[in-house]
Amino acid sequence: MNSPRDIAAGQADKRDGASRGSAGVVVALDVGGTRIKAGIIGPAHDVLLDRTRDTGAAEGPDEVTARVLNLVTDLLAEAEAGGHAVDAVGVALPGIVEEAAGRVVLSANLGWRDLDLAARLAERTDLPVAIGHDVRAGGLAESVLGAGRQCRDLLFLPIGTGIAGAMILDGRPYAAGGYAGEIGHLRVHPDGRPCGCGGRGCLERYSSASAIAAAHADRTGEPVSAAEVAARVAAGDPDAVAVWREAVEALAVALAAYATVCAPELVIVGGGLAGSGELLLEPLRASLAARLTFQRVPRIVRAELGDRAGLLGAALLARASTESP
Amino acid sequence: MNSPRDIAAGQADKRDGASRGSAGVVVALDVGGTRIKAGIIGPAHDVLLDRTRDTGAAEGPDEVTARVLNLVTDLLAEAEAGGHAVDAVGVALPGIVEEAAGRVVLSANLGWRDLDLAARLAERTDLPVAIGHDVRAGGLAESVLGAGRQCRDLLFLPIGTGIAGAMILDGRPYAAGGYAGEIGHLRVHPDGRPCGCGGRGCLERYSSASAIAAAHADRTGEPVSAAEVAARVAAGDPDAVAVWREAVEALAVALAAYATVCAPELVIVGGGLAGSGELLLEPLRASLAARLTFQRVPRIVRAELGDRAGLLGAALLARASTESP
Repeated sequence: MNSPRDIAAGQADKRDGASRGSAGVVVALDVGGTRIKAGIIGPAHDVLLDRTRDTGAAEGPDEVTARVLNLVTDLLAEAEAGGHAVDAVGVALPGIVEEAAGRVVLSANLGWRDLDLAARLAERTDLPVAIGHDVRAGGLAESVLGAGRQCRDLLFLPIGTGIAGAMILDGRPYAAGGYAGEIGHLRVHPDGRPCGCGGRGCLERYSSASAIAAAHADRTGEPVSAAEVAARVAAGDPDAVAVWREAVEALAVALAAYATVCAPELVIVGGGLAGSGELLLEPLRASLAARLTFQRVPRIVRAELGDRAGLLGAALLARASTESP
Repeated sequence: MNSPRDIAAGQADKRDGASRGSAGVVVALDVGGTRIKAGIIGPAHDVLLDRTRDTGAAEGPDEVTARVLNLVTDLLAEAEAGGHAVDAVGVALPGIVEEAAGRVVLSANLGWRDLDLAARLAERTDLPVAIGHDVRAGGLAESVLGAGRQCRDLLFLPIGTGIAGAMILDGRPYAAGGYAGEIGHLRVHPDGRPCGCGGRGCLERYSSASAIAAAHADRTGEPVSAAEVAARVAAGDPDAVAVWREAVEALAVALAAYATVCAPELVIVGGGLAGSGELLLEPLRASLAARLTFQRVPRIVRAELGDRAGLLGAALLARASTESP
C-alpha cells in the first residue's frame, strides 16, 4: 500500500509496517555518537541476536565507516551460521540524512559528511540497504511496535541531553527534507535563555536533562544530574520542585503549540527523562490541558521500546526497502 | 498512486491530482456562510460555468440543504444541456467535516449538525460525492493548481475575519480528524488579549483583518477597515504603521513556530489581507527570517486562485472520489 515514492524514500508506513512479511530477517544498526547497537531482527520484529560496539568517532570518520561495514559483515556471517537468510540491511544515525538517496549529508557526531552510506553497504553485502534518521526511525518503531500502535497522528519526543521530535502524521513519518520536528527549538519564552542554535528561549534550554541539571546548579550551586533532581522532587525539595516546574511548564507551552498545529492523538515521551515517569507526565498532562481550549488534547505516555527504538526502526526501514513498488 | 484509504477519505493527493483524467467533468460547490459558489469544472480544471447563490442560512439548516441540493440538480441539468457528462460532485464547507464518512459533524455558519450530506447528494444525483473542509480544499487547490504547484510541504494561510491554516505535508492534505492547522490560535503573546476560543494571546487577535481594524480603532478612535489601515500604512501614517507592525510581528512569531515543527518550503497567504500584497509579505519575510536560525526558511507568496480556491478544491475532491482504489 506504500506508494512507490515512499518506498524509494526508504519510508515505512505504519499502516502496513507491522504486517510486512515479505522480508524475513534483516540486519539493523543504530549508530550513535558513542556506541553502535546492532542486531539480527526476525520477521516478528524479534531481536534474534544483538551486539554493541564502540563507535570509534574519536578515531575519525573512516574508522566509523569501517566499524559499521565490519559489524554488518559479522552479523551477516552470524545470521548465516544460524541458518537465517538476511533480506536487507537498515541503518539509523543522527544528523542530516537523505533517505531516498541513501546518503548522509552531515553527521556531526559521527564525523560523516557527504557519505554514500547505502551504496557502500550495498556494495559490501549485495543486499537492499535503507538508511534513516535515528529519532525518526525510533518514532516509526514506537508507532508500529510500541506505545503508538493504535494511533495515526503522534509525536515521539525523546528528552535527553537535547530534545528532538519525530512526527508520525496520518500514519507516516514526516521528514520535510530532514528539517521537521525540531520541537527542542520552539521558543517557549519570548526573550529567554540563549540557545546554541543562535536563538533565544528554546525549549531545549529549559526542559532537556542537561538544562534541568544546569538550572538546578545555577540555583543551588550543586552540580547534580537531572535524575537526581527528579529524586529530590519526589522527596519534596523546594529548589528541585521549582526547577522541575519550570521544565514542565516549558514543555507544556511547546506541546500546546504542537497540538494547535498538528493535533496529535498521542505524545510518546522517550529518552533519559522519560525514566522519571509520572513525576514528569502527570503535571505535564495537567499543564497542557489547561493551555488548550478547543484543540484535541493528546494523551501523553511513556515510550515502550526504550533504547531499542532506533534499532527496531532501522529494521522497519530495511524491511520497507524490500517491498516491491 | 493514492492508497485506498486516501480515496475512502475523499482525500486527493497533489502528486497525481493535477494529472487525473479518469473523471472528465465534475460539479463543485463551495458553501459559505453567506454565499454558495458553484460551478461545472472541466477536465483541465477549467470553470465551464459558474453560479453564485445566497446560502440562506438565516432561514435554517433545512433551507441551506435544499438550496445545495437544488443548485446541484440545476448544474447537472445545465451540464447535460451543454453536452457534458458529469462524473462526480464535490462540496467544500466550513466546520467539522468527516470526509471519509461524507458527513458534516457541525457547521456553525450553515446551521448543519450531524448531516449525511454526501449520502443526501448521492441519493439525489446517483453520482460519487465527496465533501471536504473549505480551507483544506482551498489549500489543496493552491497546492495542485495555484502558488504551490512545485512544492510538497506547504501551508495555505487565509487571513480574513479569522486566520485558518491548511497543511499540505509530503504532498498530502493533513487533517488530523479536522483539528489540524489552527494557526490562528497559536499563542503569540504569553498573556495577550483574550480570544473567543477561551485562550489568550492567539494570533487571530493580532493579525486577522478584524483584529487589525479593532487595534486601529482602539488606538485612534476611528473605525476603519483593515484595507484602509493598509492604505494608511502605505501613506506612512504612524498609527497605522504601529498597528500593522504588531500584526506582522505576531504573524512572524506564529510562522516561526510552524517552520520549526513542520518546515514548509512555502507559505501561501490568502484571504482578504493578501490583497495588501508586498506591504504585508515583505516585512513578514524579514521578520520571519530574523527569527529562524537553522530552520528551513519558507518562501512566502500570495495565493493565486483568490476566492475560487475552495471551488476548485471541491472539484479536486470530486475527481479523487472517482478514482478506483
